[in-house]
Amino acid sequence: MSYARQLLDSYQGTVNVDVALLAAAIDTMNDCAQACTADNDADLGEQDVTEMVRCIRLCTDCADVCTAAARVISRPAGYDAEVARPLLQACVAICKSCGDECERHAHMPHCRICAEACRRCEQACRDLLDAMK
Amino acid sequence: MSYARQLLDSYQGTVNVDVALLAAAIDTMNDCAQACTADNDADLGEQDVTEMVRCIRLCTDCADVCTAAARVISRPAGYDAEVARPLLQACVAICKSCGDECERHAHMPHCRICAEACRRCEQACRDLLDAMK
Amino acid sequence: MSYARQLLDSYQGTVNVDVALLAAAIDTMNDCAQACTADNDADLGEQDVTEMVRCIRLCTDCADVCTAAARVISRPAGYDAEVARPLLQACVAICKSCGDECERHAHMPHCRICAEACRRCEQACRDLLDAMK
Amino acid sequence: MSYARQLLDSYQGTVNVDVALLAAAIDTMNDCAQACTADNDADLGEQDVTEMVRCIRLCTDCADVCTAAARVISRPAGYDAEVARPLLQACVAICKSCGDECERHAHMPHCRICAEACRRCEQACRDLLDAMK
Repeated sequence: MSYARQLLDSYQGTVNVDVALLAAAIDTMNDCAQACTADNDADLGEQDVTEMVRCIRLCTDCADVCTAAARVISRPAGYDAEVARPLLQACVAICKSCGDECERHAHMPHCRICAEACRRCEQACRDLLDAMK
Repeated sequence: MSYARQLLDSYQGTVNVDVALLAAAIDTMNDCAQACTADNDADLGEQDVTEMVRCIRLCTDCADVCTAAARVISRPAGYDAEVARPLLQACVAICKSCGDECERHAHMPHCRICAEACRRCEQACRDLLDAMK
Repeated sequence: MSYARQLLDSYQGTVNVDVALLAAAIDTMNDCAQACTADNDADLGEQDVTEMVRCIRLCTDCADVCTAAARVISRPAGYDAEVARPLLQACVAICKSCGDECERHAHMPHCRICAEACRRCEQACRDLLDAMK
Repeated sequence: MSYARQLLDSYQGTVNVDVALLAAAIDTMNDCAQACTADNDADLGEQDVTEMVRCIRLCTDCADVCTAAARVISRPAGYDAEVARPLLQACVAICKSCGDECERHAHMPHCRICAEACRRCEQACRDLLDAMK
């Protein structure tokens, strides 16, 4: 069980959303941030870097948005839909764009792996947004 | 002139929004992240910490959201309204809440200073959002 | 297999250190950052917050150091011992302090879980430092 | 006066080091993180991206290390030399490398500006390290 899930399960207050969905969002955000950070660096090592510029840019933004969103939704006590909802929407948008671009380079293993992490994170954020309605 | 502004002025591509408004948003986000980081720690040093818990939580979230948003909007080449807009909206929401809470403790100099940084950042984000319409 | 490990295994250049040790350091840093972020918030929800102030402070620093160190060592191409070594030493020091403090509150499940994450990260950083010699 | 300095001046506890040196380190770290974030993106927009790969990598690491170090040293209450010293050493090392590389491209305004930010941060970190002895 992930640390995110263990800590949510030990939480003494009320979490206003399904804990499994919340933990899945946090875990896939952290995974996605890690995959994008490493993929960014791998892209820079490709022979044709010019071809990878858009992918590098999207990975950089995606890692930043996922890291911040994971931190904010890991603090359920101060939960505020006015903050959490747009952060999740930004996550969905950047994971979609980054996943699409990485999929275009899916013949490169690092981009194939990163695309998978982006897809999972996008889906987990959509599921959490649906549950927050 | 701030480094954010100097680098935007040296930018060779097209920036789709007024550069002065963009630089003001980046600078006030970085200032707000710094003020919230330091205020958080000062709150923890107050005698009645229980009274400060909500302020500490808001400062933590506010620093995270401002830091991520500043990084993303500092990269104008990959500008995507679907990502930038909700990040700015999250910034407005958390700066409003954090500024309100800090203002309640404005007799403490660290909260008064932090409230000012939050207000400026909230306004700069609103101005940038208006200009992006 | 973690995304950190998958991406290191797909890396086309030379990694100057054992990949399993490097992946373990990245994974335990990310886990520790997550545990400290959530434990910080749980500490703020305890009845006697004053008792938790030192723990909150250490968790905040620990999450910041682990997040930055994980990002830097996830980019093996630009590896520079002059940067990586002190970052790992900072990680060891803060994980030791934070793990000790969390262990003092091990009767609280959130601190017990966080102490475990800190211990694992401290050990993985020590192992990586030893392998870098 | 910067927010970092205003908040340090309002600090009620004892700061174990000269406040002007500490504020200068925090401010130059934040400036350097901002300059490196923006320069990274500008590098990716250059015609010969391959020539900029090393600069992009160093800017990425430099922004991460400066951001984390600024956050940690902005919390004087929990000051621990075992954590702060290696973080400052990592900052000195990455600012030196990144400043050297940016200076090699000083004919590009974005790299000239970033080199200046790196040099100032490196010097402020060295000054703070000297004062901490």
